[in-house]
This record gives sequence, structure tokens and C-alpha cells, in this order.
Amino acid sequence: MNTLLPVLDLAGTFVFAISGAMAGVNKRLDVFGVAVLAFAAGNAGGILRDLLIGAAPPAAIGHWRYVVVSLIAALVAFFGHRLVERVQSPVSIFDAAGLGLFAVVGARKALDFGLHPVMAAVLGMLTGIGGGIVRDVLLARIPAVLHAELYAVAALAGAAVVVVGAVLGLPPAITAIAGAALCFGLRFMALRHGWRLPVPRIAD
Amino acid sequence: MNTLLPVLDLAGTFVFAISGAMAGVNKRLDVFGVAVLAFAAGNAGGILRDLLIGAAPPAAIGHWRYVVVSLIAALVAFFGHRLVERVQSPVSIFDAAGLGLFAVVGARKALDFGLHPVMAAVLGMLTGIGGGIVRDVLLARIPAVLHAELYAVAALAGAAVVVVGAVLGLPPAITAIAGAALCFGLRFMALRHGWRLPVPRIAD
Amino acid sequence: MNTLLPVLDLAGTFVFAISGAMAGVNKRLDVFGVAVLAFAAGNAGGILRDLLIGAAPPAAIGHWRYVVVSLIAALVAFFGHRLVERVQSPVSIFDAAGLGLFAVVGARKALDFGLHPVMAAVLGMLTGIGGGIVRDVLLARIPAVLHAELYAVAALAGAAVVVVGAVLGLPPAITAIAGAALCFGLRFMALRHGWRLPVPRIAD
Repeated sequence: MNTLLPVLDLAGTFVFAISGAMAGVNKRLDVFGVAVLAFAAGNAGGILRDLLIGAAPPAAIGHWRYVVVSLIAALVAFFGHRLVERVQSPVSIFDAAGLGLFAVVGARKALDFGLHPVMAAVLGMLTGIGGGIVRDVLLARIPAVLHAELYAVAALAGAAVVVVGAVLGLPPAITAIAGAALCFGLRFMALRHGWRLPVPRIAD
Repeated sequence: MNTLLPVLDLAGTFVFAISGAMAGVNKRLDVFGVAVLAFAAGNAGGILRDLLIGAAPPAAIGHWRYVVVSLIAALVAFFGHRLVERVQSPVSIFDAAGLGLFAVVGARKALDFGLHPVMAAVLGMLTGIGGGIVRDVLLARIPAVLHAELYAVAALAGAAVVVVGAVLGLPPAITAIAGAALCFGLRFMALRHGWRLPVPRIAD
Repeated sequence: MNTLLPVLDLAGTFVFAISGAMAGVNKRLDVFGVAVLAFAAGNAGGILRDLLIGAAPPAAIGHWRYVVVSLIAALVAFFGHRLVERVQSPVSIFDAAGLGLFAVVGARKALDFGLHPVMAAVLGMLTGIGGGIVRDVLLARIPAVLHAELYAVAALAGAAVVVVGAVLGLPPAITAIAGAALCFGLRFMALRHGWRLPVPRIAD
């Protein structure tokens, strides 16, 4: 588990960075702007979490590997955007996997820093959705994660499993796998079936 | 005073969260997006202040009650937005009261953390306007508090009263009440009479 | 050097604050909104850097002089925007100088806080471009520094000189001057000749 987690963490950073880089490519930013968006999408969630729990410097700043992984994602998207678009459906699946992983890792880290369980679940969700929020704010549009198919709520569900497991004293590895699987499953089914949360009924 | 302050603080969070939730409802975000906007509008000002003065984790992250109050505000706005709109004028008055409270509490906390009086006043203002700024950034629009009727300046005036009082050694409770009253009064009169700050004269 | 650096730092803050204030004037914000944009553009880069390296409170919050310099820039832009526009070309040159200075100072401070050289270069770049990013986010538009002529890349180059010099054990004063000069020179030549980084080739 201890050697697997960093690998999974970097994998999650990579798929999120791809989503940011592709968004930058579609807005025709230059190669450097694409790289900034890749880094922001891949790491802003974890950075926000670390700032809020008082873990300075944030992991993504304290080690160079997150920048390198984000750069690779930016180059892949910049030169291979046609290919990436053709495999968009696999990318969505990887993104859902990244979401589950980030939610679980984020909740775990918040618990380790002594936060209240309710807030640990919220911070797990923020770890999952923060990158997408900052990516869309930088592109001057309303964050997709605030209205996409069960995105934030899937992250919250996955984080909640980890937190409830910790309160009940269940083995962390089991609840982490269960939480990530629940988040991934919810998001995957929502994508496939167009599941959405209710929207307010307002007259035009 | 010590038992009253947390109640007032949560009341301020609630009215600001309502403003964020209503903005989300009007943009037809789903119920989860509305909740995120409610939390952001109700707590971003205090979170920014706490990050900048080095109080980690921020109060709104260290205790679950701010999330719960924001959620209640989100549900009220989601299911009762017609009602909330009908009582918009009372909401504006509560919002002005929240502004005065946040400005005063923010300036006080910055002083307690040893900041220079000038910066404590600035941070009091930021506590008051930060939530509205983040709410509008998430909705991809220029923050209303940067051009609304005497909004930021009312918060700065209220915070300045607390700071000047502290420098002069006046009783904190008195200056807190005076500062909140000044901020509320300025904003209330500005709303009623359409008072605005000067805008640059530029040719079209 | 030790007495010159704060002066140069405030000069950089001033030129960046002018750019933020002018953007606010052009969007017809009121005088207070213009001041907020001036402060954000002049100081957000350094504030982000300090939050990320764990230097709380950030320099721009710990001392009142940054607020005062930003306010002066706001008043200059508010009352003298016609004059500022006429001297736009000199302003661009000062902005390039501010960029070089911020990149170098930011990288130096990140190294002093023990960050890895690669991340110190990244944080130097962020110090240079952060103000422009927050300015444009507040105005609800895609940050110009993500697609302008060699802006972020010039900041990165300047910061990299400082970092490489530190790794090689060269005298800090020499590498600081070389880094700032390289950044300034790159940006100046890019402005003059319209140099740009490649943009992705996508079909419409």
C-alpha cells in the first residue's frame, strides 16, 4: 500500500492534468498556458486541501514530481490532442478513477491532521473537485463540477466511506478501496446514464 | 459577549450563505452546486483572513458547524427561493448586518494575531467582502462588491473603528458595536439612497 | 543590496498595481474597486508564493507599505488614466522590469525556505505572473499572462538563472542581476517583435 499510494497519486494528477491541458488547447492558449492549466487542474485540489489543513508547503509544491507529471500531460495534450479526443471515453473513465483516488487520499490526510470527521469528508471532496474548479475559473467559466453528472457528490460519497470507516475503526486499506470504488462507480454510472442532481425549478 | 459572538458569527455566515445559494439557484446549478456556492459565500472571507494571518486550520474548516449552517442556507434557498425573493429587502438588511459583523470580527482577530493596525483594518474589510468576491468568481462574473453601493468601503469603515479604538485603548466591546453599527448604517443608507463611489470618467 | 531590494520590490509592486488599476478603470469600477484590483495585481503573486512556502503572514500583509503603494497607484490611474494611457509604452517597459524583479526575488525566497530548486524556479515564475492572473480572474476573463508574448516563460527563465546559480554556488547578487536582465530582455524583445509561443493547431 505504502509504495502503491504515491504511484496512484501521480496517476490521478496525470489524468486531471490531461483534462486541464485539453481545456487549454481548446481555448488555443499557447504551450505555456496549457502547461499552467495542466498543473492547476492536476494539483489545485490537493494544494487547497493542504493550505486549509495547515500542511505547508503543500505536497505538490514540496516535491518536483508533480510539476514534471503535469508538464508531460501538457505535452501529450498539446501534440496529441486529436488522439486524446478520440479516446475521450477512456479519459472520462480515468478521470473518474482519479476522482475516487483524490477523494480518498484527501479525506485520509485531513483525518491524519486531526480534523473533525465531517470536515475530513468535505476536504476529501474538495481534493477531488478543486482542480476542476480552478481550471474553469482560469478559463472564466462556471466550474463544470458544480453542475456535471454526480461529480462532487460522488467525491463526497467516497470520502465519507473513508471517514465513517475511521470512526468505526475499520481497517484503513479496506475503507480506502471501498470509498474509491464507490466514487468511481457512482461517477461511471452517472456518466453512462446521464444521472443528475435536481436543479431548482424557476420560471424564466 | 463571549457566548454572543459565535451566535452572531453563525448568523452572519447564514445570511451570506443565503446570498451565495440564491445566486446559484438563479444560475440553475444543481442542489450540490448551490451548496458549494452557499459555503463559499458564507465562509471564504473568513477563510482568506485566516490563511493570511496564519491561523491554520481556518475557523470554518476547524469546526463542522459552518458547513451545517451553509447547508441549511442552501436548502432554504433551493426549496424556498420564491419566498426568499419576496423578502429580498429584509435579506439585504441582514446582509448589511452580516457585513458589519464580519468586518468587526475580522479586524479584531487580525489585531489579536499581532498584525499592524492598518493591515488589521484591511483584513476586516476582506473578511466582509471575501465571500461575495469568491461567489462571483465562481459564477464567472466581476464581483459585485467591487462596484456596488458603498459595500467594501462600509466594511472598511467598520473595521477601522475597531482598529482606531484598539490603538486608543477604548473598551473593545464598545468599539465593536460602534464599528458594526457604522458599517450597517452606511450600507443601509447607501442601499436606500443609491449612494455610490465615483467612477472614472472615460470616453467611450 | 540590502537597502536596494525593498525599494525595487516596492517599485515592482507599483508598476503591477498600475496595470491592475488601469484594468479596473477600463471596466469602470468605482474608486474602491480600482484600489482592490491595484492591490491584487501588485501583491497576489507574492502572497500566493508566501502561502505556498509557508511564510505566514505574507510580506504584503505583514507590512502596511504594500497597501499604501497600491493605493497611490490606484489614485494615479483613477485621476490620471489619460496620462497613463499616453505613456503606455513606458508602462510596458516598467512592467517587464517588475516581472524580472519579482521572478528573481520570488525564486530567492523559495530557495531560502528550503524548497527544491525546480520548485523554487516555478515559485519565482508564480511570483511574477500571479498578480496578473488574479487581476484577470477578478475581471472574469482568461488571464492574459497565459497567452501574451513570452510573459510566463520570461519569468521562468529569470527565476531559473537564480536557481541554477545557487546550485552552482555562484554569487547571489550576480545571478540575481543576470536573471532579472534575462527576463526583462526576453519580455522586451517579445513585445517589440511580437514573439509568441506556439499555439495548438486545431480545426474549427
